[in-house]
Amino acid sequence: MSLRMALLALLAARPMTGFDAMRQFDVSVDYLWHAPHTQIYPELRKLEAAGLVDGEEVPRGEHARKRRYSLTEAGREQLRAWVEEVEEPRRERDPQRLKAAYFEWASPQAARAQLEAHARFHEDALASYEKQREDILARRVPLLQARLERTPPSEQEAVVEFKAFAYDGLIARARAEVEWAQEGLRLLDRLHPERSEGEASEQPDA
Amino acid sequence: MSLRMALLALLAARPMTGFDAMRQFDVSVDYLWHAPHTQIYPELRKLEAAGLVDGEEVPRGEHARKRRYSLTEAGREQLRAWVEEVEEPRRERDPQRLKAAYFEWASPQAARAQLEAHARFHEDALASYEKQREDILARRVPLLQARLERTPPSEQEAVVEFKAFAYDGLIARARAEVEWAQEGLRLLDRLHPERSEGEASEQPDA
Repeated sequence: MSLRMALLALLAARPMTGFDAMRQFDVSVDYLWHAPHTQIYPELRKLEAAGLVDGEEVPRGEHARKRRYSLTEAGREQLRAWVEEVEEPRRERDPQRLKAAYFEWASPQAARAQLEAHARFHEDALASYEKQREDILARRVPLLQARLERTPPSEQEAVVEFKAFAYDGLIARARAEVEWAQEGLRLLDRLHPERSEGEASEQPDA
Repeated sequence: MSLRMALLALLAARPMTGFDAMRQFDVSVDYLWHAPHTQIYPELRKLEAAGLVDGEEVPRGEHARKRRYSLTEAGREQLRAWVEEVEEPRRERDPQRLKAAYFEWASPQAARAQLEAHARFHEDALASYEKQREDILARRVPLLQARLERTPPSEQEAVVEFKAFAYDGLIARARAEVEWAQEGLRLLDRLHPERSEGEASEQPDA
């Protein structure tokens, strides 16, 4: 359901071909709702069959054609209805957290590798989110610019601020995850002091 | 896959009937990996078929029988292998965050209701996590006590600390979610000042 909504929200900014949608997805919505490319074309066709988007053949180069999709009034209404509806918060389902609760079953090396991967992943994510948030507030994101062109001036601030707010949530969570992984690494050092001293002595002099 | 692992980890503490497993799931693993009850019995039967747990008929009352499951050596190995294996961190898929990015499509009332539900849910979760973490560190959780009875004294601290560490992660995230929702409510007040003043004047004098 959420991929459908993510695509409707994307097409609310401007009409797009499947290829455009895929590319734009990667640099915007995908931060908020990760979906593999292979899901995007079939979902666009389903949206068209349901009358939520209009497909139109347009030329691609000299001889080929491509399909460009634009939001219909029904699509607009469905997007609005989905955003209006209060979403049930979800219970926790995080394999990393579950695994950490049973780290006594892992070797200290394996637990350390897991936590280092966790920290790295969320540090990278954090940097992307912070960059994207800055670009949103500076109105430097092309898709946001297209969206603002279709938005009355009195409502533009809200459009920008809600996007930045969504990224605030991503940033806060990524930061919490990095700190958690670092706490775990300190815990491993504490539970296995011999090992971490051994490692330290193998390092070149700083 | 993770439900299977959650059940193996549960049975590593002590043998249990399906009913015990369901009850114990609710007061421990379920915080880390939410699963509906209906999934637990079928998964136990699959674990038995795969030789990862042993099922044994034991009396229930005067005439009836029930099945009690205990971890086999193969189950123990599979649990260990799963905890050892580095888990790929997951990309974001949070309908709340996705929806917040498009709150300009919602009425301020609907956006407010969504954020209030979000704050309430994570405040409640936070309180449960904090209580559970305290009980873990004080070794007051019966299932943890059963687990510790099967654990050599030199490894007991790790068992307790890893469980508490998993809850630290839940606590940090729940706290970030509550703060995020509150930030969103302040943003709505800022974008719709007339409305929040109107509401304030309807409140009884403080």
